[in-house]
Formats: sequence, structure tokens, C-alpha cells
Amino acid sequence: MGYTMQETVDAEFDRAVETTVDALGDEGFGVLCDIDVRATFEEKLDREFRQYRILGACNPALAHEGLTEEPGLGTLLPCNVVVYETDDGEVVVSAVDPRELVGIADNEALDSIATEVHDRFERVLTVVADELGTDPEI
Amino acid sequence: MGYTMQETVDAEFDRAVETTVDALGDEGFGVLCDIDVRATFEEKLDREFRQYRILGACNPALAHEGLTEEPGLGTLLPCNVVVYETDDGEVVVSAVDPRELVGIADNEALDSIATEVHDRFERVLTVVADELGTDPEI
Repeated sequence: MGYTMQETVDAEFDRAVETTVDALGDEGFGVLCDIDVRATFEEKLDREFRQYRILGACNPALAHEGLTEEPGLGTLLPCNVVVYETDDGEVVVSAVDPRELVGIADNEALDSIATEVHDRFERVLTVVADELGTDPEI
Repeated sequence: MGYTMQETVDAEFDRAVETTVDALGDEGFGVLCDIDVRATFEEKLDREFRQYRILGACNPALAHEGLTEEPGLGTLLPCNVVVYETDDGEVVVSAVDPRELVGIADNEALDSIATEVHDRFERVLTVVADELGTDPEI
């Protein structure tokens, strides 16, 4: 999947979410949107689903720069980091690659912002992997 | 901007937001995420910004289908519809084109879902334009 960057971590689901939110904060991202997908499907469809959270991460300064350059960019924001359980019970932390996402806007002025977010997301994933480990024994 | 579908409407900002949320509801989309960009920038950056709302729209049945097919898809969800003021004080309602967005996943199994969301967003924009008018005299 070329549009995401991800790590499979050795942790319970809730701890993975908490560690991800903290690591995002350390890189200047607030979580503006936190969707509990499992709870949503249970409520709206009465169907069970894997544990799945969508965290909409926003760095205000970078978002301001991007939206000033291109007002329509908000249709692609915030950039998401998701945490979910796999079929095997492993826990994955996966971030959208902002270069791929913002790439569909086809506006060169946004490239450096997308690369900055990409680099920060890479550091977030490194911290998450270091803190939780990446060799789950389940 | 090939990644969005949009209408410039003849209405006050708040009424445009309200009409958009209602039209989304009629097409089976709940708003799972509602970001007041102006308020966020004011709070976090102490900077003024145009009126701007990001509405994260989710049709639970279609989202369930997509996430079952491809767990990483959550990094691209929900699909956003934004409402913002232009520099000229006009009000724009703009939806991401789900075919472009989901296209970066490069998974043919998602094509029909993306097209279904696209068609619903088109109807939402038609309803919004019909209801509010599209010839602002400001």
C-alpha cells in the first residue's frame, strides 16, 4: 500500500492509540477528529467490526500555510493516522503519506508542506515503534 | 482543481453549512467530524482566517464495505465536504472527489464504492445549489 506508512506494534490497542496521540503531540499535531469506527458501525449498522480508530492530525501552522496557498485543500485535511487490529489480532499504526494525499491537488507550492508533514509522521512512527516494540508475540 | 466538486452559493455562511449537512443526511451521510478551521487557527495560532468548516462525511454501509476490503483505507476517511468564504466574500461548498481520493489506494475493488460516494456527493451539491441559488450578488 504505497499511500500509507505503518508499523505493527507490540501493544494492546488502547495503549497504541495513547502512544500515537502523545507522539503526534510531540511533533506539533493536535488530534482534531477522533473517530471510533467500531462504535460507529455498531451504533449505525448493528454490526461488529475490528477495533479501529481514525485520528485526524493537524499541525495548525502547516495547515494555515497550505489553506492560504490553496483554499480547496481542506477537502484533504486533516491528515489521518489510524490504529487498528488485524485479522491476526496484531495492532497496526498507519499514517497516510501526505505526499500521496496532497499530490492529488497537483499544486507544486504544497510539496514542501506535504514533505514536512511526511517527515514528522515518519518520526511519530519511529517513536511509536521504539516505545511499544515491533515484534508482537501473540 | 480536479480533486474537488464545488458550487458557489448565494447564502450566508452558516446557512450554507446547515443546508449542506441536511443534504448530506438525505444521501445517507452522517457528519462524524466537524472542524471549525477559523476557530482552530484563532485558538492555536492567534491568527484570523476566513470562515471555513470541514465536514467529515461518512456513509456507514459504504465505509464498512471499503474498510472490509482494505483496512488501510481509514487513512483516507471520512470524505470531506468543506464550506468556506472566498476572498470576495462568496460562499463555496466543495466536496472531495472520492474517485480521486480513493484512487491513490490503487485498488480496483474500491472503484464502485468511490463512484457511489461521488454520485451521492454530486446530488448533495445539486440540492445545495437548488436550495440556496448559485448567483450571488454581493
